[in-house]
Amino acid sequence: MSPGRFITLEGGEGAGKSTQARLLAEALRARGIDALTTREPGGTAGAEVIRGLLLGLEGEGWNPRAEALLFAAARSDHVERLIRPALAAGTWVICDRFLDSSRAYQGDGSGLSDEDILALHRIGSRGLLPDLTLLLEVPPAIAAERLAARDPEGADRIGGRTAAYHARVAMAFARFAGAEPQRFARIDAGGACGNVHAAIMAALAPLLGSP
Amino acid sequence: MSPGRFITLEGGEGAGKSTQARLLAEALRARGIDALTTREPGGTAGAEVIRGLLLGLEGEGWNPRAEALLFAAARSDHVERLIRPALAAGTWVICDRFLDSSRAYQGDGSGLSDEDILALHRIGSRGLLPDLTLLLEVPPAIAAERLAARDPEGADRIGGRTAAYHARVAMAFARFAGAEPQRFARIDAGGACGNVHAAIMAALAPLLGSP
Repeated sequence: MSPGRFITLEGGEGAGKSTQARLLAEALRARGIDALTTREPGGTAGAEVIRGLLLGLEGEGWNPRAEALLFAAARSDHVERLIRPALAAGTWVICDRFLDSSRAYQGDGSGLSDEDILALHRIGSRGLLPDLTLLLEVPPAIAAERLAARDPEGADRIGGRTAAYHARVAMAFARFAGAEPQRFARIDAGGACGNVHAAIMAALAPLLGSP
Repeated sequence: MSPGRFITLEGGEGAGKSTQARLLAEALRARGIDALTTREPGGTAGAEVIRGLLLGLEGEGWNPRAEALLFAAARSDHVERLIRPALAAGTWVICDRFLDSSRAYQGDGSGLSDEDILALHRIGSRGLLPDLTLLLEVPPAIAAERLAARDPEGADRIGGRTAAYHARVAMAFARFAGAEPQRFARIDAGGACGNVHAAIMAALAPLLGSP
């Protein structure tokens, strides 16, 4: 049995990551591939407890360094308990946000360097990298529209920041994609859901091999 | 105003660290020095929440990598929110366990290297080191006797391991002290409480200066 493939979806808020993760898993299953979808932060019981801690601390909240360590701890639980065993069992894993979100959100302008975030990943998750990272890119106006359509109760701390902040995050993602073109596929995610899904399936062709 | 001094107490279970921390703080206050005692894991609201997580996860518990990240996150909150501000305000901080406990317990035989633990400390707490680390060393038989006298309900997961494990931890502490003789003072903590306190005050003489 060959190991499963590890595919992550990255991008800002409102890019359609969770919808596309679901559509991708359904398409893989239709081809007879065992696929599971998961998300970060969270994905396992331990990681969900840490996710609650990250969103819930009263008072001053976490300093950026403690926050980065907590994200890395949650990822470690997720990788060692769920992702690696699933891949070893031949299951494809589709993950909504992963390491590159930490690099874009915690490693950019919060006092931590990209090297620091990568060091935490090496220590916590033995440096596991996706086989393919789908970077869903949307114009800011479309992302804002999609976010406004969501339940406002669902807006979390990270979702509630400024346009300049989101633009900086989008630029960080684009920089990572440029530095690792073999791992990343940049997907224009501003169009209709079905078109975005088709672009994702095209990007997956090298992993799927001949039909 | 000169900054406060940062003093840590390290050693295995049953070495008398918390008792000696209290006696040391009282002795400093008697000399007119503002001193606070704290402990790890814990010491701040955020760090205590993480401490609860470390001791409380049901099921398989945390893998060693996630555990090391959680300890480092708790330390980051403790250092940035309590220890650094107190030192900056001129208060001496006496901490029951700190970085060297992570090095001895998580960095030894659990798949993580000492370099990994030090990297987590550099990223999480900007590498803060104590001015003086008091290593309380007791013969294993005396430590076991003291532990047996404690409320058995108080025994935690780390306290409940084998004699070989505790011997390995004691050797790790001794190795750290040997590598940094200017930071460490090795204290024979097998004798009566008052004698141990006197040895600690003698080790502090260089920090206290002339009376």
